[in-house]
Amino acid sequence: MEGEPTLRLRIFDLNCWAIRYLSKRRQERVRLIGDTLCQQGFDLALLQEVWSEQDYSDLKVKLAGSYPFSHYFRSGVIGSGLCVFSRFPILDTLLYQYSLNGYPYMLQHGDWFCGKSVGLPGSRAGVTAPLLSLSLQLHAEYCRDKDAYLPHRLVQAWELAQFIRHTSKAADVVLLGGDLNMHPEDVGIRLLRGWTGLRDAFAEATRFEGCKNGCTLVPDNCFTDKSELLPFPLGIRIDYILYKAISSFTVKCEELKTTTGPAPGMDIPFSDHEAVMATLHIQRQGQPAGATLGTADPALADVVTEARTEVGVGLRAAQRQRYSSGRMAVLALLLLLLQAAAALGTLAGLGTEQPFPKLSFCLLAFLALGVLVLATGLHLFHTMEVKMLHGTDDQMWMVLRALQERP
Amino acid sequence: MEGEPTLRLRIFDLNCWAIRYLSKRRQERVRLIGDTLCQQGFDLALLQEVWSEQDYSDLKVKLAGSYPFSHYFRSGVIGSGLCVFSRFPILDTLLYQYSLNGYPYMLQHGDWFCGKSVGLPGSRAGVTAPLLSLSLQLHAEYCRDKDAYLPHRLVQAWELAQFIRHTSKAADVVLLGGDLNMHPEDVGIRLLRGWTGLRDAFAEATRFEGCKNGCTLVPDNCFTDKSELLPFPLGIRIDYILYKAISSFTVKCEELKTTTGPAPGMDIPFSDHEAVMATLHIQRQGQPAGATLGTADPALADVVTEARTEVGVGLRAAQRQRYSSGRMAVLALLLLLLQAAAALGTLAGLGTEQPFPKLSFCLLAFLALGVLVLATGLHLFHTMEVKMLHGTDDQMWMVLRALQERP
Repeated sequence: MEGEPTLRLRIFDLNCWAIRYLSKRRQERVRLIGDTLCQQGFDLALLQEVWSEQDYSDLKVKLAGSYPFSHYFRSGVIGSGLCVFSRFPILDTLLYQYSLNGYPYMLQHGDWFCGKSVGLPGSRAGVTAPLLSLSLQLHAEYCRDKDAYLPHRLVQAWELAQFIRHTSKAADVVLLGGDLNMHPEDVGIRLLRGWTGLRDAFAEATRFEGCKNGCTLVPDNCFTDKSELLPFPLGIRIDYILYKAISSFTVKCEELKTTTGPAPGMDIPFSDHEAVMATLHIQRQGQPAGATLGTADPALADVVTEARTEVGVGLRAAQRQRYSSGRMAVLALLLLLLQAAAALGTLAGLGTEQPFPKLSFCLLAFLALGVLVLATGLHLFHTMEVKMLHGTDDQMWMVLRALQERP
Repeated sequence: MEGEPTLRLRIFDLNCWAIRYLSKRRQERVRLIGDTLCQQGFDLALLQEVWSEQDYSDLKVKLAGSYPFSHYFRSGVIGSGLCVFSRFPILDTLLYQYSLNGYPYMLQHGDWFCGKSVGLPGSRAGVTAPLLSLSLQLHAEYCRDKDAYLPHRLVQAWELAQFIRHTSKAADVVLLGGDLNMHPEDVGIRLLRGWTGLRDAFAEATRFEGCKNGCTLVPDNCFTDKSELLPFPLGIRIDYILYKAISSFTVKCEELKTTTGPAPGMDIPFSDHEAVMATLHIQRQGQPAGATLGTADPALADVVTEARTEVGVGLRAAQRQRYSSGRMAVLALLLLLLQAAAALGTLAGLGTEQPFPKLSFCLLAFLALGVLVLATGLHLFHTMEVKMLHGTDDQMWMVLRALQERP
């Protein structure tokens, strides 16, 4: 970037909602997204919920000319759904899978099966600026009033923040685009922004164009679930482009846009989410600005405390579930042992007559075995959940102590 | 470290083999380890296989005076077993759980339940040197001739190398201590060292004292399994201290020691592994040496290719297992449907007499149900395995391409 005072970087971010067999008019929309990306020639496109590798391959073929570099992040049963298309070479990638991501038995929510992650392609924009871009998605919020996944989403936000802090130290610019599944004022996003120093492109943009308040889930979109948006008549903003400059660079958001429902000249939008498009100006400064990893914001300690409280609530719930699944497993085991003793007794001729009809006896034994296997599985799962919530609580406590000791 | 030309850093690394109810004379040995750490006053102790949180708490209390800072990394069902005791403040921690770590159904090996990870405590030694130390353990090798876990261990070595490359960019010194479960000439360790530029304290040490060839699993140790070591009469070296300086620092290993069986004045050793103790000299150089993330070693491409071949072998095995478990699930489902049809037929009075005795019919249905649940679980697990092996293969391919394009 030397001798080239400013780099203008155009970024496209979209939750594509491309779930095979489930998402409406998927193939048509993926084609539309590919066409738009081709025409508009962004520098970087961060896509989420591209669950089908076939869709990624199709996009890759279509975009080979204008975005010669791309990466698809594989994880979980279904995949992470994350992919990146870039005009700049992708030098290296890293995938960090969140340690907690919902429950495998909540089949109707399915987040667990996706292996939600943050994908980090390291690239080099212009001549010298190492650019770290992250594409990600956090656990969905299914019910805002009784959000059972809040502790998991907070653990994810915390792990994401820690991941950014640890991986971004030698980058010049960090960019994050994705569906955070959090409203701008939520504790998770305050934690993420506070602890990493990332700035919100919507709040910083000189010009804005698009849905009111930068909302990305709006009732005008024909694919959104209108009942979910009843308490928010304008829609909600849960897709973000965040950024920061680390070393001797400054980043300014010149313009931020969102799509507004149907794509131009079409009857359908790209997805059930609106796309976010940012134009950033990256400039080299004379003097290295020094690492700005965290902010010295005195409110940060309050945010960490608030998040810790929620993680604590999740921890106690997980402990209760671990206890009850463990108790259920023990009861099932006792029943099985009792049945085994009764069966042995009968075989040894201790009882003169058979106490139960054979069929009911067998059914009961299978039921007990089924409960034992299921309850043991649940117990193991909730034990892991407790460990991870506890570990996050530890880390938060360590940071709180450091923040409080700071002058 | 300004005005203080050299920092002398003494590091202790030990796989403690402290598994509750299974490890012999565990409590006695943990006490012994605590006493020795107290007396010897190292700067940093990296411990693995401390599975019991109670053991960690006991050590923490005992070592509070000489190692005021410590951290226990929680993960998996049982835990990661990793903990760190430090004379320097631990400013921040990060836990990275490997995406693959054996199979949950290999209960006798149990690695899956441990949630094997790399724990990264960031600390500050002396006045200004950010120090990144890593404590870790990779998947065990149960049979060297037919090592079914080699692809998983290679994925772990690769993820570890990527993790180090991405997190160490702003550190002055990187230290890694742990049980890598790999012999010095194994492809995994060549990959790790080649791709990160880490140096082996044993190879670099000016002075060495301890077991021949620096072995850490030796037949003289009363806790080792002698039959496993038959092909290696001198023992094997699988515990390492690796290091590198990143920026304007140089690191030299002045001395490396291993314990040799029984602890001084005792009849038992610390563990079934020998401890590794290194004395490093860290010195600030006049000129920043520049980041030395990877090495420009032309042999690196060969190592990555070799590793990729092994990952490919694992990938094909995982694909076969995914296919056969999927087929098994489909067959079980078909059997269940057939039974349901027969039962419905009997209920509707289509058959005049009952085709099976009720008991066998029920037993068969339960068997089919059990197989269905199990095979579906296995199918999901192997699908994830395929995804992760495939993802690692992608990453390795990307790196290979970059290496080959390099002048």
